[in-house]
Amino acid sequence: MSTITALETVDLRFPTSRDFSGSDAMNPDPDYSAAYVVLRTDEPSGHAGHGFVFTIGRGNDVQSEAIDALAPEVVGRDVDEMCADLGGFSRSLVYNSQFRWLGPEKGIMHMAIGAVVNAAWDLASRRAGKPLWRYLADMSPQQLVDLVDFRYLSDALTPAEALELLQRAEPGRADRIAALEATGVPAYTTTPGWLGYPREKVVRLAKEAVADGFTQIKLKVGRELADDKLRLQAAREAVGPDVAVAIDANQIWDVGQAIDWVRELAEFDLAWVEEPTSPDDVLGHAAIRRALDGIPVATGEHVHNRVMVKQLMQAGSVDILQIDAARVGGVNENVANLLLAAKFGVPVCPHAGGVGLCELVQHLAFFDAAAVAGDQPRRRIEYVDHLHEHFADPVVVVDGNYQAPTKPGFSAEIVESAFAEYGYPDGRYWRTAG
Amino acid sequence: MSTITALETVDLRFPTSRDFSGSDAMNPDPDYSAAYVVLRTDEPSGHAGHGFVFTIGRGNDVQSEAIDALAPEVVGRDVDEMCADLGGFSRSLVYNSQFRWLGPEKGIMHMAIGAVVNAAWDLASRRAGKPLWRYLADMSPQQLVDLVDFRYLSDALTPAEALELLQRAEPGRADRIAALEATGVPAYTTTPGWLGYPREKVVRLAKEAVADGFTQIKLKVGRELADDKLRLQAAREAVGPDVAVAIDANQIWDVGQAIDWVRELAEFDLAWVEEPTSPDDVLGHAAIRRALDGIPVATGEHVHNRVMVKQLMQAGSVDILQIDAARVGGVNENVANLLLAAKFGVPVCPHAGGVGLCELVQHLAFFDAAAVAGDQPRRRIEYVDHLHEHFADPVVVVDGNYQAPTKPGFSAEIVESAFAEYGYPDGRYWRTAG
Repeated sequence: MSTITALETVDLRFPTSRDFSGSDAMNPDPDYSAAYVVLRTDEPSGHAGHGFVFTIGRGNDVQSEAIDALAPEVVGRDVDEMCADLGGFSRSLVYNSQFRWLGPEKGIMHMAIGAVVNAAWDLASRRAGKPLWRYLADMSPQQLVDLVDFRYLSDALTPAEALELLQRAEPGRADRIAALEATGVPAYTTTPGWLGYPREKVVRLAKEAVADGFTQIKLKVGRELADDKLRLQAAREAVGPDVAVAIDANQIWDVGQAIDWVRELAEFDLAWVEEPTSPDDVLGHAAIRRALDGIPVATGEHVHNRVMVKQLMQAGSVDILQIDAARVGGVNENVANLLLAAKFGVPVCPHAGGVGLCELVQHLAFFDAAAVAGDQPRRRIEYVDHLHEHFADPVVVVDGNYQAPTKPGFSAEIVESAFAEYGYPDGRYWRTAG
Repeated sequence: MSTITALETVDLRFPTSRDFSGSDAMNPDPDYSAAYVVLRTDEPSGHAGHGFVFTIGRGNDVQSEAIDALAPEVVGRDVDEMCADLGGFSRSLVYNSQFRWLGPEKGIMHMAIGAVVNAAWDLASRRAGKPLWRYLADMSPQQLVDLVDFRYLSDALTPAEALELLQRAEPGRADRIAALEATGVPAYTTTPGWLGYPREKVVRLAKEAVADGFTQIKLKVGRELADDKLRLQAAREAVGPDVAVAIDANQIWDVGQAIDWVRELAEFDLAWVEEPTSPDDVLGHAAIRRALDGIPVATGEHVHNRVMVKQLMQAGSVDILQIDAARVGGVNENVANLLLAAKFGVPVCPHAGGVGLCELVQHLAFFDAAAVAGDQPRRRIEYVDHLHEHFADPVVVVDGNYQAPTKPGFSAEIVESAFAEYGYPDGRYWRTAG
């Protein structure tokens, strides 16, 4: 018998605001950061579980402290028991009667729970010797249903419906897994499109993206309409008519403004418009989608839990759901989100970038392709080419496709050399930065 | 010229779980707590601003740390400038480009902003020598409109519409203020109805409530249907047919379950059913309200921002909106919420209880009555009879009516003797508690 012996956190901040990487209409100066957590065990193997919340700088200390506050709920647990019932583990944190008040199921405390739940999944899949997506894809439909908290979902998705949906996808699993391991899942790249980049840089990076095999790029928009037109025109010319171009407004518009603005950009043949308004605005997204009449609407990276995802589906708010690995309550809630999307026939194109979001979210997309929604030609995983060097098992993108992760775990581990350099405020970079 | 010289926080926890005060279907063991903040100034008068987030125990330290994290954004500000533009002050915190990611506009970070914004209002109204509700009610319609962040609201309420609404209410203001100062605003009491109380205690306290002049009580429900029926029957018999009885499920049900359960209780003539399901479920509340066909539906204490309130109004989700003073981004966002409710003709019955929520929220209800919605026979402010002894300016309820606050400020100040006793973990109570 082994136990969780410690919950350790690290406040890691990378100074990305220096070159406007990651800049958009709502977030002009992000310092991409991770409130990082390690669950230590006394297993002879030395296995540990790794997870994190992605933030963009200030407040990463508060996020880390929220994770620390969960230590008494986790340290001392039997590892076998925890890993054998990750649904129960997740619910024990979400429904902790006093912590729940701080959300409920939203914001800093819910993200802290998500990081700890993800770390437990990292540990469980390492112990099983499988990459997380295979660990999930090898579970039975009933085991997968048991992971999900159906509270507040039953008017849209019952456990019985979820079971049936997963059972329908079961016969083709093995073939799909083989195909995924051979070719991977298509990526799209946001690298060319940061709002702070000059137009020449957008053009150069867009051309590089096409040369690298990407079939879709994404541009940040929403600061100035005339400038958006110029940047989109330049990007469209750079990539040609056959590469998809999506736009992302990062919540900058009101409903009517979104409709007017996007209509002005429709001539550039948009793959989707992402986060046109507040992530909380289920009805607003539905109104925008109706008015845009065919231009796909996408959101999800800031959608805080399964109750919101349920409503996005019920209201017909989106054409594409963009789940995030580190915003909701961890793997368990994302299994719920994938099931909801599958029930309503909405493709899932996960949000990535940030610190390690590519590493995490690829597992969820591969799992979705293997065992939930199955084949889906519109599935794309976001890709951004920064900060991967700090990960022990970084993503591999070849010819515009994410390659199937093969190492055991959730690819969440950050190498310790990053702590010494970018630990905040005592890492070398921050001690010596002006 | 004076400045904000310090932002101080105190973690205060009251051991209410010992006698089940505050117990309900979702929260069986709350220790009512306050993450308390004081904005110090160098004014010769010694004026300071007080505010807090209400929590129910664990995590109150994280909430306090989130407030502390805002100190660099606040300390050093010019007090005159801040108090002259509290709309701008509020927006400067809500749109802080890195902190915003931690919500956005929800959870611990948004509540922290709300506490600091409320403390700034406490300071501003003290300096003006007025209780907060009068300070607000004496502003011009344009000044009130300028307090509000209309981002994400314009599809439901524009600044021009808000201005018109406030201007329509202006002629009767003076008379309404005089009436409010003479008689106050009706209260209802939740004191008899905690779920952990035995039936005899419910009956005794319900009778006391009627004797004290209350015309409405509220019972917690949702743990066991048969028990709910017995408790409701006993309470209804105790208060007679003329006193209103509301029920509160504290988010325990799914949509279908809420409909079925409440139909079973309809015979007891329910004033409203409160929080039947997740506070995030705009569409779920609308479905419940349609199905219950006449039994009023209420929610709001856990609704995290104005975008959610907007949608509750747009979808026709509720008959009664229950704003909370310490859940959203402070007074400014609650002015938006009051305007939205007034636009859609939905009465506002604020949530109170907890630590100091009665003290805060009374100001918002009096302001609503004076300058926004005006006369509204269904307006009631929740009242719970505990923890008022720790406040410097506690609420006064006479014959079931909240009396108009008269002292300058927001009634948010907690007396220092409470710090020594209930400061966590070093106060006398917690040092010596088993």
